[in-house]
Amino acid sequence: MNIKYMKRALELAEKGAGFVNPNPMVGCVIVKNGSIIGEGYHKYFGQNHAEVEALNSVVENPENSTMYVTLEPCSHFGKTPPCVNRIINSGIKKVIIATLDPNPLVSGKGVEILKNNGIEVEIGMLENEARKLNEIFIKYITTKVPFCLMKTAMTLDGKIATKFSDSKWITSKTSRHYVHKLRHRYSAIMVGINTIIVDNPQLTVRLKNFKGKNPVRVIVDSRCRIPLDAKVVKDVSNARTIVATTVLADKSKTKKLKELGVEVLTTPTINGRVDLNYLMKKLGEMGIDSVLLEGGGTLNYSALKSNIVDKINFFIAPKIIGGHLSKTPVDGDGVPFVKDSFYIDNITIHKLDEDIMIEGYIRNKEGD
Amino acid sequence: MNIKYMKRALELAEKGAGFVNPNPMVGCVIVKNGSIIGEGYHKYFGQNHAEVEALNSVVENPENSTMYVTLEPCSHFGKTPPCVNRIINSGIKKVIIATLDPNPLVSGKGVEILKNNGIEVEIGMLENEARKLNEIFIKYITTKVPFCLMKTAMTLDGKIATKFSDSKWITSKTSRHYVHKLRHRYSAIMVGINTIIVDNPQLTVRLKNFKGKNPVRVIVDSRCRIPLDAKVVKDVSNARTIVATTVLADKSKTKKLKELGVEVLTTPTINGRVDLNYLMKKLGEMGIDSVLLEGGGTLNYSALKSNIVDKINFFIAPKIIGGHLSKTPVDGDGVPFVKDSFYIDNITIHKLDEDIMIEGYIRNKEGD
Repeated sequence: MNIKYMKRALELAEKGAGFVNPNPMVGCVIVKNGSIIGEGYHKYFGQNHAEVEALNSVVENPENSTMYVTLEPCSHFGKTPPCVNRIINSGIKKVIIATLDPNPLVSGKGVEILKNNGIEVEIGMLENEARKLNEIFIKYITTKVPFCLMKTAMTLDGKIATKFSDSKWITSKTSRHYVHKLRHRYSAIMVGINTIIVDNPQLTVRLKNFKGKNPVRVIVDSRCRIPLDAKVVKDVSNARTIVATTVLADKSKTKKLKELGVEVLTTPTINGRVDLNYLMKKLGEMGIDSVLLEGGGTLNYSALKSNIVDKINFFIAPKIIGGHLSKTPVDGDGVPFVKDSFYIDNITIHKLDEDIMIEGYIRNKEGD
Repeated sequence: MNIKYMKRALELAEKGAGFVNPNPMVGCVIVKNGSIIGEGYHKYFGQNHAEVEALNSVVENPENSTMYVTLEPCSHFGKTPPCVNRIINSGIKKVIIATLDPNPLVSGKGVEILKNNGIEVEIGMLENEARKLNEIFIKYITTKVPFCLMKTAMTLDGKIATKFSDSKWITSKTSRHYVHKLRHRYSAIMVGINTIIVDNPQLTVRLKNFKGKNPVRVIVDSRCRIPLDAKVVKDVSNARTIVATTVLADKSKTKKLKELGVEVLTTPTINGRVDLNYLMKKLGEMGIDSVLLEGGGTLNYSALKSNIVDKINFFIAPKIIGGHLSKTPVDGDGVPFVKDSFYIDNITIHKLDEDIMIEGYIRNKEGD
């Protein structure tokens, strides 16, 4: 039993990021006499699971070998037959699992079948790492509501744009590249209508040699003010666009949008705004497991108040803009007293060129 | 020659922080046959220099020993006789110096005298560390203007107080303790009149077993609105208070303040506000070598615009307050475009309990 093989399995799993949603990322390594004789990972949604990929790749008979797998092998027929059968038939002696399947309907069943078939099972090696890797899957499979990451890019003094709405570019190239990788990993990007009106962004993934699909673009737009010539309207052939609006929207406008290929989702109102909890639930029902929230201050505060945010990524550039009219990453009403703050737990700090990226989890939220 | 002795000398030097201003912090270690036979540091302004302290402490004859000293030994009569004479008379064979005296009037002279007396001299061991340790001294001795550190305590979303001006406490106990150590190290604390009116702070050093003196409190108050019952007015016996004002101040008010023991410094106006460059120059003339700027957003922006800020310490708590009416660390007019930002160089990141402290230097400023 050696932790380095599980590390390798996690590394492999990670390669599926952005391609397997809403499935989990899974990696698998098969070890015999101290050598890796096979490895694999879940590459695309609907295709082979990691265990099968690894067993298909063996360069030696896997009889009496040990399998390291980042997630409990499945025991049910889904898009592919159950992995446990394949493992049992292979003659593998021992299976080491980082973490059990978080789906309460199947959790522990794979382990049970393996044990009943005389296979030794160990659970929990690098469990925290494995759970973090699949934080999106874990939340989505247990709640059917997408995991939400709030991302913002600000100056050291907490500004996301100057008083003239200039924001190009606050953060470094490396930070912006990182954001494109996030966009690839998440199934949807969510912004507020102000961002569309002020910046007219494309909200697609711009990465070299990128072969994945673009995330769904969700525009929160209570009164359906979106310009018909906005980039996210004009290029719906490139990426799906969903405008989340309310009964306050003009019917002829929503009709025109639909004609242009934009999906319109009407939610109940909360104080005249889109009901974000309703919206998230609907997105979950569409199979969207994750939302990257790139909101302005108004949407970000509404999202926090609605408790839809699970995680934050704050990119901080070593610059000061100042200005009482400059834009800040979270505005809206704000909490009345410091004790009412939203708290961030499990902070980690990353350096991206000269920028600092602070990652953390909103306290007392599902999916942490 | 061993770098560990210079590290020890720097450690010793640091002990003088807050006690030696406007002198530099200096530490000294004397080594003979691989053992430390004496060490010392400059303890209080006007008292023995580090070299003399070290020589006074030797447990063996220092003949043929090596001295490690963080700053070039002095060659002139000040409050104490020149250190070079004492070194020459001691029979020391070699002197290793971290950095030359930054004072252009005497820089290199100590080294010259030592060399002329047959003592081997090496310069530059841990020079960056030694210069950083004495960044205050270096700026002050070369410009006669105080070194200025802008300190702020904010939430992750860049707020220093809620819309109701609540700010107690944004940061952790450990961060606040660190700020009291800063206050001890700096000769003056500067705040704006709004801070006095809203928070009525004491602006003294609250540290256990604190025996140093409190920094001078400088209140920037263009129209002299300071309440006569403000804590910084009532306890002038505890710490000096200087109100920096302009001709816009009411004469009877400034007279009353003076009667209460408050010093009043009238500066020219810039757009109806205190001329911060004039103020800093005047503070320098009073022997104040360093200013800890604990401003609100208005004063902080004016300070940056006036180019009086050398260094920043941003304490960031893992909380989100939000609010378009909440206070931010730097407001005022703000720069029009991102390209006009104030840039921060040489960023270092510190963890203080759950808080993050970002330290850096304003680009293109004297004293960096």
